[in-house]
Amino acid sequence: MRLVTVIEITAVLVGAFSGFIEARRKRMDLVGVFTVAFIAAFGGGTLRDILLDRRPLFWVQHQEYAILIFVLALVASPLMKTLRHIVSERLIVIADALGLGLFSVAGVSSALEAHMPIFIASMMGVITGIFGGVLRDIVCNEVPMVFRDGKPYAICAFLGCWLFLLMGMYGIPREFALWSSAFFISGLRLLTWRFNVQVGR
Amino acid sequence: MRLVTVIEITAVLVGAFSGFIEARRKRMDLVGVFTVAFIAAFGGGTLRDILLDRRPLFWVQHQEYAILIFVLALVASPLMKTLRHIVSERLIVIADALGLGLFSVAGVSSALEAHMPIFIASMMGVITGIFGGVLRDIVCNEVPMVFRDGKPYAICAFLGCWLFLLMGMYGIPREFALWSSAFFISGLRLLTWRFNVQVGR
Amino acid sequence: MRLVTVIEITAVLVGAFSGFIEARRKRMDLVGVFTVAFIAAFGGGTLRDILLDRRPLFWVQHQEYAILIFVLALVASPLMKTLRHIVSERLIVIADALGLGLFSVAGVSSALEAHMPIFIASMMGVITGIFGGVLRDIVCNEVPMVFRDGKPYAICAFLGCWLFLLMGMYGIPREFALWSSAFFISGLRLLTWRFNVQVGR
Repeated sequence: MRLVTVIEITAVLVGAFSGFIEARRKRMDLVGVFTVAFIAAFGGGTLRDILLDRRPLFWVQHQEYAILIFVLALVASPLMKTLRHIVSERLIVIADALGLGLFSVAGVSSALEAHMPIFIASMMGVITGIFGGVLRDIVCNEVPMVFRDGKPYAICAFLGCWLFLLMGMYGIPREFALWSSAFFISGLRLLTWRFNVQVGR
Repeated sequence: MRLVTVIEITAVLVGAFSGFIEARRKRMDLVGVFTVAFIAAFGGGTLRDILLDRRPLFWVQHQEYAILIFVLALVASPLMKTLRHIVSERLIVIADALGLGLFSVAGVSSALEAHMPIFIASMMGVITGIFGGVLRDIVCNEVPMVFRDGKPYAICAFLGCWLFLLMGMYGIPREFALWSSAFFISGLRLLTWRFNVQVGR
Repeated sequence: MRLVTVIEITAVLVGAFSGFIEARRKRMDLVGVFTVAFIAAFGGGTLRDILLDRRPLFWVQHQEYAILIFVLALVASPLMKTLRHIVSERLIVIADALGLGLFSVAGVSSALEAHMPIFIASMMGVITGIFGGVLRDIVCNEVPMVFRDGKPYAICAFLGCWLFLLMGMYGIPREFALWSSAFFISGLRLLTWRFNVQVGR
């Protein structure tokens, strides 16, 4: 249980960061920057919890994360200007890949706890992993990147969720299954990014 | 009860097909094609169930439909190329009109079972009938077609939902009311399409 | 309890009006005009209730408001043409500021009743106040105005929600806290509008 929490916190920060970038690119003001970061960070998990009818929501139970994003949004503008010179695209992709793995595995795990059938559980994992970004792009009036760039982003999440599900079927301990599946997703995402793999349309 | 299920299955396939078309038009990749088809097929019913707080969701209870759309999405690209020469616009409009009728009537029926007041029940019917398409268009970054083409699409659904509600008040058997209202909606939609009826703005 | 109801009704009408304007600007048809007005009026409160898992929704419990917007939508087109000569921008801004204050305070109050932690409650207030407009803009395929115009709209709501929360902590009677916080939000919004205050990006 605590492992899943650790997983979600890390992913939240990475998600918020992607929201800051997108909101700044759209020249949004402070309110937009906070909201888009919040949606990018918590959107996937919130959609999953609404679909599963789970309450309290993650960010209601842990208001400290909402406050953290609020404070970061206040300093996002100078923060981004400084970070621009420090943070390379490579670093963003790596952090985002970690977030994808951690979020997706947390999602499929929650769905199993809520007694979802297995294919639906794998979908809930992918939803948790990618819908923060999807909702972020919709709010920013873009066709969601993950639906159109032909890169195996959601597909990595989907494969890793099935790895987790299969490990569960074969009685592999849950902690090990969680971490290794998250690592598998992040690694696969980075490998396909490094070698610029495209999935056929 | 089983009748409503049959109604929803048919409508799901028609909805998914509209999602395939729209996602291909937007040059989305496999992930986009599946997601948009899924949203087009299940979006209206899912929104209704969230508003009514009904669980499990239709596609959670019947994961075979989610799997079916998943498999269809995998073959959507060659499928669409083949179907383009076979499926005329007329056929798409007919299938879509059937979906509209079936979905809307299933929606108003569910809302009554959930003890919604009567006007709200009629709205839930229309939401179930049209919001798959609305959410599909929002994800594809378009102003929803059903809100701007001036054709009586949602209005057909609305009138048919009231036909169903009135039949219920006058004690007409539920099965008959369901099928005849769905038939009424589909027929009215096709008639207004055939004669190019426009509702004044 | 009745006070909160009065608060929400006033705000609903103002919200619907903003939806009429936006839908007409986008040349939507009758269905679009009704739906956008409905979303603008009830979207914020509905999102709050879904997040809090509160049912029945406000507009389900009070179907008379849904019917009212329906009737207004039927006459929206001639109504708007007439009102264009009567209603100045100033009047719209004033009505909207009243709606913002009333909605936000109703939202934070509901969130407290649902035992939300305090920062989350303030966020729920702001969500109730601004997300009708946010969802309206998303459906109309626009980047939400409130995220990009740099005016302290959501910020007024946020400050007023904290005023309400602080009054509660200091034992100030709830009725007084509700009205004075709503008045504070509306007044601050109008002042910052009048003097064209911009919050730095």
